[in-house]
Amino acid sequence: MAEQPVTVAVSTVIFGLQPPAEPRDDALGGLAVHLPLVQRVREPHLGRWALPGGPLHADESLREAARRNLAGTTGLRPTHLEQLYTFGAVERGVPATPEEPRVVSVVYWALVRTEVAATTVDDEHVAWFPAEDLPPLAFDHEEIVGWAVRRLKNKLEYTHLSHALLPEEFTLGQLREVHEAILGRRLDPANFRRRVEATGTVAPTGAHQAGVRHRPPALYRSTAREELLT
Amino acid sequence: MAEQPVTVAVSTVIFGLQPPAEPRDDALGGLAVHLPLVQRVREPHLGRWALPGGPLHADESLREAARRNLAGTTGLRPTHLEQLYTFGAVERGVPATPEEPRVVSVVYWALVRTEVAATTVDDEHVAWFPAEDLPPLAFDHEEIVGWAVRRLKNKLEYTHLSHALLPEEFTLGQLREVHEAILGRRLDPANFRRRVEATGTVAPTGAHQAGVRHRPPALYRSTAREELLT
Repeated sequence: MAEQPVTVAVSTVIFGLQPPAEPRDDALGGLAVHLPLVQRVREPHLGRWALPGGPLHADESLREAARRNLAGTTGLRPTHLEQLYTFGAVERGVPATPEEPRVVSVVYWALVRTEVAATTVDDEHVAWFPAEDLPPLAFDHEEIVGWAVRRLKNKLEYTHLSHALLPEEFTLGQLREVHEAILGRRLDPANFRRRVEATGTVAPTGAHQAGVRHRPPALYRSTAREELLT
Repeated sequence: MAEQPVTVAVSTVIFGLQPPAEPRDDALGGLAVHLPLVQRVREPHLGRWALPGGPLHADESLREAARRNLAGTTGLRPTHLEQLYTFGAVERGVPATPEEPRVVSVVYWALVRTEVAATTVDDEHVAWFPAEDLPPLAFDHEEIVGWAVRRLKNKLEYTHLSHALLPEEFTLGQLREVHEAILGRRLDPANFRRRVEATGTVAPTGAHQAGVRHRPPALYRSTAREELLT
């Protein structure tokens, strides 16, 4: 039996927080999880939006390919980059043909800081979309984004991953907004503050937020930063 | 630039428990984590032991390929089968050559029940080895087994995965032995019993262990069984 060749591709789900495009339920914070997508310029699925990615180059590791996806769509260094899962069903949203061989996609997921989440390289075919309101995606990319969102929510509960979405210095209110944006529900400010302070994963910098006249909130930094950057 | 083809392989780390080959530190239970390996019959790494696996077939999913590895080495159905990680460094223990193209390995890990862990298909090139005393392995398979062992230990702490290594009905002493074998340390029987009963993941069957005359221990079954088999 002649084996049909299988191509290896690497795709990356890149999460960042942005203000929601439209006013939302005011029980939620002022940020929403967004991700950059790339519009396909050839068949199959011409014109559809897809995760940044492409064939693995012969001289790069999987992780290097994921970083290339990030550079090509946002021009940014991630604060978190981790392998998500490898998707390899026989038909993934498009029948394999001699012209379009079967693709196995190794998928990474990444976090970028809030202040830069809206940045994209100058390319009309790259745009950020809210994770909760995506256009129809190419191939099985809706399923892949669903996996990544679940991983993000699960990891949020038992790691300090939310710090990777924030600037170097942040208020506890901003940190709570990140959690609210990812979990999609409001958190009690006093309870949240107690819980975060009990973990010992943030430390006050001694400074306060600029531009706030009356009782400016204290700024904190992550004490788990080193772990995040590896 | 002509891209060198990248081959997709699927390998599977299969864990089962067996009595240790040699007497061990008597602080440990009577079982040790073992895995089946396959001796290579061609270059590169001729004669070395390797994880069961091989190229992905064009007509099978990644998971189906992992099941094929299991059938080919143990002839058994796993009680747990899960994707571990995809390994895709540019050189993985052997330089890529035109004759031996670069391989990206999607690795699964599986659990099989204790009573059948010693079973292998009739093949002189397949044998079970203790995870803590492996022969030199081909390619980067030592690194891969290390990842799988860490995942097994981590998962043990927050899931009911240990049930997947036991027969349908088991005593709490047997369950403790499984945990001791994986964690590599002795657990206090009374504390262990309390902790397991508190989780509500096991239920007494009403029967007792056969062949024990004096106060035979009660048999339990997993109430998390369905989840394990998916």
